[in-house]
Amino acid sequence: MSEDYTPMWKSLGMDLDAHDALLGVLGQGYQEIYLAQKNRPEGMGYFDFVMSEVHGLRIKELLDEKKQNRKIIGSYCVFVPEEIALAGGATLVGLCSGADFAVEEVEKHLPRNTCSLIKSSFGFKLGRVCPYLESADMIVGENTCDGKKKAYETFAGIVDNLYVMDLPQVKSSQGRSLLKAEYERFKIAVEKLTGNKITVESLKEGIKVVNAKRAALHRLATLRKADPAPISGLDALLANQVFFYDNPARFTESVNKICDELEVRIKKNQGVFPSKTPRILISGCPMAVPNWKLPWIIETSGAVIVGEESCVGERGTRNLTEDSGKNLDELMEAITDRYFKVDCAIFTPNQDRSDHIVEMVKAYGADGVIHYGLQFCQPYIMESIPVENKLEKIGIPCMRIETDYGMEDVGQLKTRVEAFIEQISD
Amino acid sequence: MSEDYTPMWKSLGMDLDAHDALLGVLGQGYQEIYLAQKNRPEGMGYFDFVMSEVHGLRIKELLDEKKQNRKIIGSYCVFVPEEIALAGGATLVGLCSGADFAVEEVEKHLPRNTCSLIKSSFGFKLGRVCPYLESADMIVGENTCDGKKKAYETFAGIVDNLYVMDLPQVKSSQGRSLLKAEYERFKIAVEKLTGNKITVESLKEGIKVVNAKRAALHRLATLRKADPAPISGLDALLANQVFFYDNPARFTESVNKICDELEVRIKKNQGVFPSKTPRILISGCPMAVPNWKLPWIIETSGAVIVGEESCVGERGTRNLTEDSGKNLDELMEAITDRYFKVDCAIFTPNQDRSDHIVEMVKAYGADGVIHYGLQFCQPYIMESIPVENKLEKIGIPCMRIETDYGMEDVGQLKTRVEAFIEQISD
Repeated sequence: MSEDYTPMWKSLGMDLDAHDALLGVLGQGYQEIYLAQKNRPEGMGYFDFVMSEVHGLRIKELLDEKKQNRKIIGSYCVFVPEEIALAGGATLVGLCSGADFAVEEVEKHLPRNTCSLIKSSFGFKLGRVCPYLESADMIVGENTCDGKKKAYETFAGIVDNLYVMDLPQVKSSQGRSLLKAEYERFKIAVEKLTGNKITVESLKEGIKVVNAKRAALHRLATLRKADPAPISGLDALLANQVFFYDNPARFTESVNKICDELEVRIKKNQGVFPSKTPRILISGCPMAVPNWKLPWIIETSGAVIVGEESCVGERGTRNLTEDSGKNLDELMEAITDRYFKVDCAIFTPNQDRSDHIVEMVKAYGADGVIHYGLQFCQPYIMESIPVENKLEKIGIPCMRIETDYGMEDVGQLKTRVEAFIEQISD
Repeated sequence: MSEDYTPMWKSLGMDLDAHDALLGVLGQGYQEIYLAQKNRPEGMGYFDFVMSEVHGLRIKELLDEKKQNRKIIGSYCVFVPEEIALAGGATLVGLCSGADFAVEEVEKHLPRNTCSLIKSSFGFKLGRVCPYLESADMIVGENTCDGKKKAYETFAGIVDNLYVMDLPQVKSSQGRSLLKAEYERFKIAVEKLTGNKITVESLKEGIKVVNAKRAALHRLATLRKADPAPISGLDALLANQVFFYDNPARFTESVNKICDELEVRIKKNQGVFPSKTPRILISGCPMAVPNWKLPWIIETSGAVIVGEESCVGERGTRNLTEDSGKNLDELMEAITDRYFKVDCAIFTPNQDRSDHIVEMVKAYGADGVIHYGLQFCQPYIMESIPVENKLEKIGIPCMRIETDYGMEDVGQLKTRVEAFIEQISD
């Protein structure tokens, strides 16, 4: 890190020793998983820097924004519209939930049979090691799965300023009207938090900024159709992860810069792995920083990941928000339309998702799908069986993996992944 | 059983051998758990008969109703309004979900980490051993927990005529309007199924019949306040279970008859266990027939169960439906009001439930609460931690149990339950 942030972390009430230990592990993991890769695009240097400063410079920026009276909103889910936060003059950041921390303490509040992601969000708070969470003026929870829905009831007693957003379970007209009402309520809450009235102009600007981030990721995704793949899945995942943390304009610029570089690579037929490397689509639960276990296993087992059907991936970013609305209501309708399309497994039925997986397989020329389910994540693990059946019916090999944030199963997973890659290479 | 029902079961397409085996196990379990009890009220003879004929005479009655063109609606949840089914001239019955069956086959469709109740509902269908399911003209699923919500997507491919009801997650005005809309939709579906138009008169009559069943169970519950308890928890649970299967009028009459008998017992200071027997309130997941494991362990370990805070118990029956509405809309509003009060753990927040647990402890003079969570039932297991904290804060001992329909943990559970009973006896 570029400077000593200890006073800053101290001012946030963080546990400095625990946090040092966490950063140590994170840094070592990044070294072994990311920096050990070969043939990386030069543009990834920006993301390496971002990651080295993820609890440093970026937090300093947020605290500087706070000094200018800008509010920070933390969230755990792609259903929280960044457009509305930006329109209210607030910054939206994703909150830490990608690693085990303070597990023993967490299990006093949550059942052992809770998914790693939810446990992690509690662990980072209880262990006081997430500077994003400690900087946030408002934390937004949402009624997606049962696990999160019920966990937020307890979380409300642990954090200040928890705001919970309700979500529909069915894409009916009633469901859409609930989502719209909840976004209207969120808009009012943001206005109240920031003291800024959201206007047609500010909302259009918010939509523009977020769409630009998404469009940059679409451009990146399209370039991954090439064989040899011009960028690793690990690096592309990192871009999708940093999407939630970084300054939006800078993020967009950085991703586009990488894309420029990748276009040159593709013209020269250069790749990060050799041509004809088996191509994998990952589908399933989100992977928050530093949850790189499965992609790392896959890409050190002879395959390349060409797409992420995930909240931290295409599920989260594939749709843009229509910005042609002439008044606030039309823009809010457009935002509702956009998010109502998200094919999260909390919806029933959720045919769109399996259709999209098939589309992605075809678009990115994947040879097989690895379905990633976090243990005890009922929505995705339940969907994984019909997803697998559908894929296999049309001749697309699929392997379902159920795991957590622990490292105990790495050997076993590697064996299974290698066997799967061998199978799809035939 | 009073006669040979084999031709009837055969006509329903059931697996006769598997079903014989199931009835054998069920009969033996009933013998060992129910008939082995001492000091039972004579009126329980009716329920013994009902249980001995649960797949026989009752199914014959349903099939006779079908011959008269009456439709049978099967359901898995207390959110399906029996009032509406009855008003449409249909019969509502609970479907089998209280025992493991065809587990290997089930796990081809559902993840291993699915609760026993959901697995059981699949098992009874895949094994073709539930005559209620095979008799049903319409099967109603509902978006309660993630597990059920996602499982019904698969179930739709396994059964005919699955109808899925959406449910809210928050008791907001949006939530209530969703519930109302879903009940209106259900009313239309019932009318379509039966060909009968629901009228003010028929809906009032439906409400009256279901309220009478509930009122009989309220009367039974009130009598359990006495010490010595005039009826075992196992027998009271059975009445709550048969609530879902029996002819409503006959059920009401039979429960009231037992209550008459219990009143005499109470006057004579007679009980099913000695006075001062430690009193337990069970709270948590529903217990469908023949899931009697935990109550049986408790009542053979020196305690008596004095109440069930459960869907198969007071959560399901404590509220009556107001019947004073003058038109269909007023009656439908009253039905919505009634079911919107159900304090299922799918709702967030769900303070009503923990308040009700405390009320029940006081009303029934319970010495402690045993929280019953089905393994992998996230809503109830997640709530069990704050419930326990709340109870212990006000000096009510609570033990949280997580189990399934298997018998492997009986010894371990018995040890824990005995220790808890010893603790609350001090």
